Amino acid sequence: MTHSQRRDNLKARLSAGGLDALLVTDLNNVRYLSGFSGSNGALLVFADEREAVLATDGRYRTQAAEQAAGLEIAIERAVARHLVGRAAEAGVHKLGFESNVVTVDGFDALTGELGERDGATELVRAAGTVEALREVKDAGEVALLRLACEAADAALSDLVARGGLRPGRTEREVARDLEALMLDHGADAVSFETIVAAGPNSAIPHHRPTGATLADGDFVKIDFGALVAGYHSDMTRTFVLGTPADWQLEIYQLVADAQRAGREALRAGASLREVDGAARQIIADAGYGENFGHGLGHGVGLQIHEAPGIGATSVGTLLAGSVVTVEPGVYLPGRGGVRIEDTLVVPGNTSTTAGKTPELLTRFPKELTTL
Amino acid sequence: MTHSQRRDNLKARLSAGGLDALLVTDLNNVRYLSGFSGSNGALLVFADEREAVLATDGRYRTQAAEQAAGLEIAIERAVARHLVGRAAEAGVHKLGFESNVVTVDGFDALTGELGERDGATELVRAAGTVEALREVKDAGEVALLRLACEAADAALSDLVARGGLRPGRTEREVARDLEALMLDHGADAVSFETIVAAGPNSAIPHHRPTGATLADGDFVKIDFGALVAGYHSDMTRTFVLGTPADWQLEIYQLVADAQRAGREALRAGASLREVDGAARQIIADAGYGENFGHGLGHGVGLQIHEAPGIGATSVGTLLAGSVVTVEPGVYLPGRGGVRIEDTLVVPGNTSTTAGKTPELLTRFPKELTTL
Repeated sequence: MTHSQRRDNLKARLSAGGLDALLVTDLNNVRYLSGFSGSNGALLVFADEREAVLATDGRYRTQAAEQAAGLEIAIERAVARHLVGRAAEAGVHKLGFESNVVTVDGFDALTGELGERDGATELVRAAGTVEALREVKDAGEVALLRLACEAADAALSDLVARGGLRPGRTEREVARDLEALMLDHGADAVSFETIVAAGPNSAIPHHRPTGATLADGDFVKIDFGALVAGYHSDMTRTFVLGTPADWQLEIYQLVADAQRAGREALRAGASLREVDGAARQIIADAGYGENFGHGLGHGVGLQIHEAPGIGATSVGTLLAGSVVTVEPGVYLPGRGGVRIEDTLVVPGNTSTTAGKTPELLTRFPKELTTL
Repeated sequence: MTHSQRRDNLKARLSAGGLDALLVTDLNNVRYLSGFSGSNGALLVFADEREAVLATDGRYRTQAAEQAAGLEIAIERAVARHLVGRAAEAGVHKLGFESNVVTVDGFDALTGELGERDGATELVRAAGTVEALREVKDAGEVALLRLACEAADAALSDLVARGGLRPGRTEREVARDLEALMLDHGADAVSFETIVAAGPNSAIPHHRPTGATLADGDFVKIDFGALVAGYHSDMTRTFVLGTPADWQLEIYQLVADAQRAGREALRAGASLREVDGAARQIIADAGYGENFGHGLGHGVGLQIHEAPGIGATSVGTLLAGSVVTVEPGVYLPGRGGVRIEDTLVVPGNTSTTAGKTPELLTRFPKELTTL
């Protein structure tokens, strides 16, 4: 889908919501709607046929012209304030703004700008309007997510193949190797700080890599991702060094079963809470409910965590063409933990997916690998 | 200075400003005042002798107890909202909040929390209160900034010593090597995305590394930094591959002269605009004023860019014990550019500096190095 088509979809939503225009200040939303990826920018999108205006500062003059070709580009340091003025000049009555992003001081500046004018422009809270569009990925977005996941898959395969996971290495060394390999395989950057957690540390859901060394008999839990053209991948695999103990086999199999159930529950229209429950119930039935203390998954795209959240208290349903993680875990404090996480496309009838089963984007094997 | 002493300094400011307490939601400010470095947290600091309360969610229970030992820790997902309730219960009348950080939706939630109570608590805009304290670094902060700058110095020295800057290598390869070397020398992470800009790309002030290869006769401009315990370093050096041309010698010497003048202008009480002017005038007098399109420098600390900004339109004066960059540049589009940047401690009578000359934290040589 072109950026222009995305803006057309937004126009339809604005009209439906009674807004004459939307001031877009979230930088991921600006990027989604215009292609512009600089660190200072805002976009004014009209509900009618008038073309959007992108504002950025002088550092990005060339980049904006290339990335957002066809849009009018206003060079101004105070981008949001400038566009509010433009909206007022254009006779916009109801101007939506992203109240989940604009700060109180920023809002004061916008109302101050309007206060200097005689117009009838009114600022209206419109949080999450673009985020709701972004929840369903188009074909171009899925292609970039696929590339990001492929880079992560290839990096982990290389790491294992070259013996990177062996006793004596530190968590930090493993994380650095894996990050370097993702860059080798085409990632622009890492998607988030890599988690490598060995032995008892694997029981900490979001452990930061330390100088702790991998040892025989350890679980090694690795949660990592690649960034490609702004799109994030997210995958977790858990290994055992040496011969797994019975308790390790037990919880690994349990998490694998729960993860499969979660994946199989992904379908358009499914209740988010029920998707979470499909996996959680298996873990609870085995007596480990207390050891799975986080949600089952989340949307992935221009942000590493975006809509929808899939948890025990989530409200709403899955949309066809959304891209989500499924990542149950069981964590036994002081002993170790397992998490298995994939990123998948929710099936259904959209431009990106016509199938009945979720497309698996993270393809590294999930059978317990002992090293 | 301990976190407790920093909170005492804040208490004095709150009292002077007529506030009974401050709700701190900026995560760098939370870290500065409590030591807690998690990704979800807020701090309630009372103007009187009552101890502060730190709120965070269950993921950070252990970490918060370790990092913010001695503080009461409230485990709540909606951290700011919880602390506003606590302030109301504690009888706070004027509760400052960080209006430069809290979003419009966030503010609605806070006023909603107060609306459910009968108390007389009033939310008062208090943007930048903690940031103003942070502008003057204490001895512990300078020690960490020194470590970060040392890691960067050592990495660049290693890179040059092992022939990392030579024709045929790509900008991206050089950036990756340098980043890996910073980690080897003790950095927790990189401070910001490394800039390596070769040949004509060196004329772009904030160029992202590409697959472009270094070639004989190129300027190679490298702007990079290390992160140590939350503190950032920032340094730029420009090299020439092979024999420099006359125009390269000319603008290098010009920038070096301007940079020295900027460093020598750093003293407590100096007007920020005059510090900028000390360097800018030299470049303008040589006829290159149009080719130096950014400010002279900025504060560095828990953020890579913080107060004070040192530019042609800055208002205010330098404070003793602040840590700032001095980074003039001359950029000739299509040909190449030079920037030389150091990070320094502004001298004056404080706990961290008694000298009369700025302490140079980035010590890699600034003589033109030809490779």
